[in-house]
Amino acid sequence: MEGSVTRAGEAAALRYVPLAELERLRTLDAEPAARARAFADACRLNVLYMIARAGSGHIGTSFSSIDVVSWLHLDVLGEGDRYFSSKGHDAPGLYAVLIGLGQLEFGLLDRLRRLGGLPGHPDVLTRPQVVTNTGSLGMGISKAKGFVLADRLAGRSGRVFVLTGDGELQEGQFWESLASAANRGLSEITAIVDHNKIQSDTWVADVSDLGELERKVESFGWATGRCDGNDAADLARGLAELEDAAAGRPRLLVADTQKGAGVSFMEPHGLPPGGDELYAYHSGAPTPDEYGRAVAEIVERLGLRLEELGEEPVRLEEAEAPARSAPLSPQKLVPAYGEALADVAESEPRLVALDADLLLDTGLVPFRRRHPDRFFECGIAEQDMVSQAAAMALTGLVPAVHSFGCFLSTRPNEQIYNQCTEGTRVIYVGSLVGLVPGGPGHSHQSVRDISALGAMPGMTLLEPCSEHEARLCVEWAVQEATGPVYIRLVSVPWDLGFEPPTPERLELGRGEIVRPGADAVIVGAGPVVLSQAYAAAEDLAERGVEAAVVDLPWLNEVDGAWLAELAARAPVFCVDNHYLTGGQGDAVASALATQTDTPVGLVRKLGVDRVPECGANDEVLRAHGLHAEGIAARVAAELPARV
Amino acid sequence: MEGSVTRAGEAAALRYVPLAELERLRTLDAEPAARARAFADACRLNVLYMIARAGSGHIGTSFSSIDVVSWLHLDVLGEGDRYFSSKGHDAPGLYAVLIGLGQLEFGLLDRLRRLGGLPGHPDVLTRPQVVTNTGSLGMGISKAKGFVLADRLAGRSGRVFVLTGDGELQEGQFWESLASAANRGLSEITAIVDHNKIQSDTWVADVSDLGELERKVESFGWATGRCDGNDAADLARGLAELEDAAAGRPRLLVADTQKGAGVSFMEPHGLPPGGDELYAYHSGAPTPDEYGRAVAEIVERLGLRLEELGEEPVRLEEAEAPARSAPLSPQKLVPAYGEALADVAESEPRLVALDADLLLDTGLVPFRRRHPDRFFECGIAEQDMVSQAAAMALTGLVPAVHSFGCFLSTRPNEQIYNQCTEGTRVIYVGSLVGLVPGGPGHSHQSVRDISALGAMPGMTLLEPCSEHEARLCVEWAVQEATGPVYIRLVSVPWDLGFEPPTPERLELGRGEIVRPGADAVIVGAGPVVLSQAYAAAEDLAERGVEAAVVDLPWLNEVDGAWLAELAARAPVFCVDNHYLTGGQGDAVASALATQTDTPVGLVRKLGVDRVPECGANDEVLRAHGLHAEGIAARVAAELPARV
Repeated sequence: MEGSVTRAGEAAALRYVPLAELERLRTLDAEPAARARAFADACRLNVLYMIARAGSGHIGTSFSSIDVVSWLHLDVLGEGDRYFSSKGHDAPGLYAVLIGLGQLEFGLLDRLRRLGGLPGHPDVLTRPQVVTNTGSLGMGISKAKGFVLADRLAGRSGRVFVLTGDGELQEGQFWESLASAANRGLSEITAIVDHNKIQSDTWVADVSDLGELERKVESFGWATGRCDGNDAADLARGLAELEDAAAGRPRLLVADTQKGAGVSFMEPHGLPPGGDELYAYHSGAPTPDEYGRAVAEIVERLGLRLEELGEEPVRLEEAEAPARSAPLSPQKLVPAYGEALADVAESEPRLVALDADLLLDTGLVPFRRRHPDRFFECGIAEQDMVSQAAAMALTGLVPAVHSFGCFLSTRPNEQIYNQCTEGTRVIYVGSLVGLVPGGPGHSHQSVRDISALGAMPGMTLLEPCSEHEARLCVEWAVQEATGPVYIRLVSVPWDLGFEPPTPERLELGRGEIVRPGADAVIVGAGPVVLSQAYAAAEDLAERGVEAAVVDLPWLNEVDGAWLAELAARAPVFCVDNHYLTGGQGDAVASALATQTDTPVGLVRKLGVDRVPECGANDEVLRAHGLHAEGIAARVAAELPARV
Repeated sequence: MEGSVTRAGEAAALRYVPLAELERLRTLDAEPAARARAFADACRLNVLYMIARAGSGHIGTSFSSIDVVSWLHLDVLGEGDRYFSSKGHDAPGLYAVLIGLGQLEFGLLDRLRRLGGLPGHPDVLTRPQVVTNTGSLGMGISKAKGFVLADRLAGRSGRVFVLTGDGELQEGQFWESLASAANRGLSEITAIVDHNKIQSDTWVADVSDLGELERKVESFGWATGRCDGNDAADLARGLAELEDAAAGRPRLLVADTQKGAGVSFMEPHGLPPGGDELYAYHSGAPTPDEYGRAVAEIVERLGLRLEELGEEPVRLEEAEAPARSAPLSPQKLVPAYGEALADVAESEPRLVALDADLLLDTGLVPFRRRHPDRFFECGIAEQDMVSQAAAMALTGLVPAVHSFGCFLSTRPNEQIYNQCTEGTRVIYVGSLVGLVPGGPGHSHQSVRDISALGAMPGMTLLEPCSEHEARLCVEWAVQEATGPVYIRLVSVPWDLGFEPPTPERLELGRGEIVRPGADAVIVGAGPVVLSQAYAAAEDLAERGVEAAVVDLPWLNEVDGAWLAELAARAPVFCVDNHYLTGGQGDAVASALATQTDTPVGLVRKLGVDRVPECGANDEVLRAHGLHAEGIAARVAAELPARV
């Protein structure tokens, strides 16, 4: 639930394990496995601290993998070896371990998902400990191969340990990457599957059963083994046995783990397979109550472990939890979209919905409930999902295909084009678009989707700014569009700061004036851009500049003559929650440049011009100059000569 | 070798099997397998005719699969069943069979790869026989699943037979698609692997060995079987045994075949595994001599088969081969690029090259010869290739990554973005870009690549128009660029019609005036656009309009102030060998609209506005209005009011 707000309510004191205590634990005079167990539990406490403080982050997978990560860092990795997580959302666990080892500055404990701090998914900016950017699934083995081939070419030696998820193995690239590793005999590679059996919200076996995993991987020429991944001693055994068995082959170790391991109520013991109930600790911060209970349980167990070793209990330090403000009257586009889709499906029996393991995040719960036979869960397999939808469309169905915008616009990009060339209609729905939430980082900040999909033949791209407009987009896509459609949804509940317009229907290429003004025109789409543009206009008004704000939900279809007339030679500022290149701004600038009816004044594009920053939402918008103040400043800077 | 010119020299008489003869063969009073063998050979003759006439097409794979395709259509497929080829380049074989069955109009035999005829890869325009668009690899099983799920939802029944290649199985989507077919028990699906052991130019086992294919697929929960795919009787046995063994599982039959089967010298008997010698009949037309020998061999064998059955030999009819003109003094960008890359690698030891099974088509033969340790063949696995290159770049190497533009810009789109976010430098080289060659059809006509890659952070996109400029692009990418680069290469040898400019180096965002003129400015990149623009300008000059032609090799970096000054308020026409959206035209229009130094006149974009047509090169350019005449007409239409 990347898009959801934190569940943390009021601020409460948070507790962390200080550096001296971490040092004590990792140098305990004990069996290596006992030491690793104690160290991992201390790191679990710091993971809870980091995520509670950040307000979001992935607890479940950080906990399932942290025994593996601790063991590797304490007892396995040596000079020249590399470790990275392919799934990447276990980053808090890795950070806690690296901080515990003194390899990352201790103060970064307070900087998870903050600007200049520790990104929500690993990034090479965290040098040199993070060796590659991850967060987009399935790339791990390929990257391991690249490292090994480069090392061999340079005459370097070194092993590569890659942690993967189990849900992640649904991605085709994982399987694509196996063969050549075996054919080239890349025995430097050890992949460890964090087999916690839960992907995002539910059981892997329910979504897309992995079947006989070891048999599959062995059939690709790899050596495989299995162990308890939450038990350091068994992990050591598993790694050693695999080393003996590998005989020049690359290796894969299936580490059986529990999602949320180490906090009983975060483990999925009570989650019935095949049911509708969903796992609750994949992402998001714990409530203060959950936080307190989790800390207590770990502290108690760790205390017992230390007592057995004749050691003092762990000493925690306290820090105040940061206060957090919630939006006042937010637009919640994803739920509004989901309800609208389920509604229009009542009168459109051809409508079916496909999901790639993001049921909660794409708003599809009502659709699944109301139209269960028309809902298809495809797993983390976007290419497969899109090509299935393409075939369904050829039979006359109208498939709506869902994922996060960052994945949907890119992973199955060729499959979407293939579908478009068939002249059929598929509705693509990308959520979590734009710069915010800023916490997950650039693998999840979808700021290339307009460009990546803009030139699909016949495809219309739409972005609503309000719940009302989200419904209009669904109605247009299902009832009016003749070709493929992409609906771009900001996931964060967001205050507009103005009363959203409520037209009865959308008019192709044209938008709504949400604020009049003759001195300048600010054009954009979606709640983030329009809220900031509106606030900027209010600010400018106080300085005597009246800027109009235009809600233009059409991203690649702009009526240039209409806009030129509306602007009446006033400067036009296009604000994009997207890269400057290939976004709505390019469509607007190009439409203005190529229309001939009305003379056009100055045109300026505002948008993202580099890899998006990771941080709190306001930090990120500010860093890219897309907060109200930044927009107002850009408008004011251009106006003196004109007004 | 999609980009290569035909090897057919002078026109010679071509021979085909007329409809009456095809009808006689498919209704022979004989064992079904004997009938199918005779019918398939007749279809082979018509495949040769079609490809020789078209000047290009895939013989090797049409021949390896034609016994399977014939058998399915003659004896297996029934009401409600679907058949399609996932690889798609065996289309001539399928067309010959459908024509032989009377399911396609006989006259289409003359219309392979021609406008309004039979596309180079299957397209649903060939209704209703072609059920889905293919040519992009790996999508077949996914589509089969979509058909079956839609049928089940509608209460329809019917089987789906999908033919795949064997090299195609290197694509991750194939493996991604297997699990849910087994989990959902989609026993309606039968996949048949045309296991001819040769992908594009060489042995699959040398590129990326498939290993124990049946064991792999069985480990995913499928039933598998094996047979001789060039023997109808054994194919029937294989299908029947698989039917018995499947027990509710989806099925996959490995059909062992010979590439080029049925013409001894087109079968790869002499091709040594592991060697540098390449298979010669993957694509392209036969020479007149090869054509004659191939026809003679098939006619002789078919005659003997018919004699055994007590039937008359087959009667062929003759048709004149179409005359073909060759370019006079063409720019050959791909070989020029390849030589330049091998040259700059002499002084840049960090440069490595990766290829996705298109060694010949991407110009990498010299690089592999001169720097064998720095060349990596990755197979048909673009995602895996890019992520490997990304890791190599993290170690300090400068990888150059190659495929056709249509595949490279889309299949690994997310992987490329992931690499760009790491701040490293990888050089992407997409060949076969733009509308021509027009024969392969839209799966291969790369007209979305600028849009798909334009917003990659830090990436510069370049397209040379000449061999000289191709070398400059390589030098700039390797020696000057600090971020990732995309080099876009037209593959067809192409006459420019003017002397190409020979600057010593490229200047960011600016181009060369290849023809002066004050009345209008035509801007574009690449030999196809610039040759047509130049010819258009020459034509306009005769009508008293002097249009400048500007070679602007920068696709997403345009110095708007420079161009505005150059244009001096004359109308600017941006011509794109790409979709109108997201191409160079958008970059130019946007750069002009957002610059403030110089007033700008009218701006117009010319480019592709729908799914590209398949046809002869001149037909396709004309159909999209991007031939010289079309450009001249657009310029003239805008000028009367101005000049």
